Amino acid sequence: MTATPLDRPLLADSVRLTDRGVEILDRRVFPFERSWVVCPTVEDVAVAIEQMVTQSSGPLFAATAGFVLATRSLAGATDPDHVRRELRRTAQRLIATRPTNNHIREGLAGAVAALDADLDAASLLDRAAAAAAGAADGYLADCRALGAATAAIIPDGARVLTHCWADSYLVETVMAGRAAGKSWEFVCTETRPYLQGARLTGPSLVEMGVPTTLVTDGMVAETMRRGMVDVALTAADRVTMDGHVVNKVGTLAVALAAREFGLPFHAMVIEPDPAAPGIDAVPIELRDPDEVLSVMGVRTAGEGLRGFYPAFDVTPPHLITTVVTRRGAFAPDKLIEGTPA
Amino acid sequence: MTATPLDRPLLADSVRLTDRGVEILDRRVFPFERSWVVCPTVEDVAVAIEQMVTQSSGPLFAATAGFVLATRSLAGATDPDHVRRELRRTAQRLIATRPTNNHIREGLAGAVAALDADLDAASLLDRAAAAAAGAADGYLADCRALGAATAAIIPDGARVLTHCWADSYLVETVMAGRAAGKSWEFVCTETRPYLQGARLTGPSLVEMGVPTTLVTDGMVAETMRRGMVDVALTAADRVTMDGHVVNKVGTLAVALAAREFGLPFHAMVIEPDPAAPGIDAVPIELRDPDEVLSVMGVRTAGEGLRGFYPAFDVTPPHLITTVVTRRGAFAPDKLIEGTPA
Repeated sequence: MTATPLDRPLLADSVRLTDRGVEILDRRVFPFERSWVVCPTVEDVAVAIEQMVTQSSGPLFAATAGFVLATRSLAGATDPDHVRRELRRTAQRLIATRPTNNHIREGLAGAVAALDADLDAASLLDRAAAAAAGAADGYLADCRALGAATAAIIPDGARVLTHCWADSYLVETVMAGRAAGKSWEFVCTETRPYLQGARLTGPSLVEMGVPTTLVTDGMVAETMRRGMVDVALTAADRVTMDGHVVNKVGTLAVALAAREFGLPFHAMVIEPDPAAPGIDAVPIELRDPDEVLSVMGVRTAGEGLRGFYPAFDVTPPHLITTVVTRRGAFAPDKLIEGTPA
Repeated sequence: MTATPLDRPLLADSVRLTDRGVEILDRRVFPFERSWVVCPTVEDVAVAIEQMVTQSSGPLFAATAGFVLATRSLAGATDPDHVRRELRRTAQRLIATRPTNNHIREGLAGAVAALDADLDAASLLDRAAAAAAGAADGYLADCRALGAATAAIIPDGARVLTHCWADSYLVETVMAGRAAGKSWEFVCTETRPYLQGARLTGPSLVEMGVPTTLVTDGMVAETMRRGMVDVALTAADRVTMDGHVVNKVGTLAVALAAREFGLPFHAMVIEPDPAAPGIDAVPIELRDPDEVLSVMGVRTAGEGLRGFYPAFDVTPPHLITTVVTRRGAFAPDKLIEGTPA
């Protein structure tokens, strides 16, 4: 948000479907290396998602691109049931890569539904591919609406603290804020163990010309106590209908600190999840505990320690000021009625 | 706290005064390397403290040993005023190495006071050296009393979450708990950026046979939400008379999470600081912001980011259950009256 012209950061376009397959920007080594993992098959895409080559909105784009890739590999098929069976299996494989996040399931829902049509094999392939590609485009349109709604509630001049990497939500928010003439600064957490803040959020904000300060995850409350923050803002991987926010572990600490220091905490999600009336409906993924014992492959912990790595945490509604969706900003207890705040 | 016999961990005896000078275990590379920094002069000791060769109680032991080293270097002096001037300058240099922590100032107070006596040079040197060495011994005795008082309020079978490295306080607490037949497990935070938890607390607890789980700083609240923690326990670098706890940045997040989940938060300190009636009397040290941008010398942040590194944070009394001192356990608003809880 300086005089520097803003460009979309590289991470905003980090999945490509090419003649070689699905190419995914490798976020495990970004920004130190800008390399792409080439996935010639859907199974390669699924493994790449599981191995955290990409994250946040990346799996949605990778999965929809992977699904389109699968339709290509079935070109020339003549048996509609064979097409249905193969593509349903493809969708299941891709959805299974991430148990907590709904993005892939939602992104492929239209393509899977298209398989129910009574059509010949070629038409089924066309429809399913169009639905998958359209889902990715629709997601970006949703992010633009979400970004506009978020930018509308953040005042000009605000110092915004964010955790992890809110990806397209954040990019679109910053772009919408700029379009509205708003100038912001950011404080971002490094976000251990994967360092999304240090490696993805921080560099992308810098690419966009936004002044950004990095702190460790344990410094959030102290930056607020010192008056360095006006607004706390994160994405949400999932929001339940009763207003619980499931997001990268550490988000709960941000919300607790914001409450203590009287700051608003806003969470961004395209839509709350109608399949999750309450938090009991959401499984919280545990990841490889050894990731806590090292940083970027360098061992940081002494011998004999065991790690524990809950990938997400749960922030209850009483700690949340606003859930921002593509339809506007809501108090967390108003998500069911759907009345914007 | 298993069947394994407990030994004092190496970190409990990490400063030695030898014929070569003051030797300090290098905590910057521990536990991966067990190397000692040899300081032939007081200035070397001061620089070692400033460069974080040691931390927590290490600077106290290094400073008192450094002071004794200075008395040795003055052996044979005949002018009492020369001795006084040199040793007062020595004390000032050592005290100036750490602006937030009181340990060095308190540890050298007796030695500095001894210089006021109307004695010949040799006697002044003897008295000052004895006072400095006695302060280190007295500190260990205080830690034993503090450890016993802390162990008394932690139930058998407790799962204790700790942040940073409580050093002699923690070692003595674990030893006192064992002596009382109590068995505990620990969850410790890695404590970025210096990784005290991953490198010092965790390995030392493992050395003592205590089952220990490591989490990142952002996971504290989630471990409590999951019911994995019964008690939160940290040291305090300083406690004001009105019950504010100044400790390693991240402690405030532990206290906020403990309150949210109804868990006690205990802070350990030898004594609250009579020179600090309230928090305005305590300067909070800022350290090199570049330390936030890397881990153990490996760059973790993208280009263009600026870091911010407040070394400590401030936990207000309303978030604290107990301040444990060498005289017992106190509610944070009862420190002035001095009535144990």
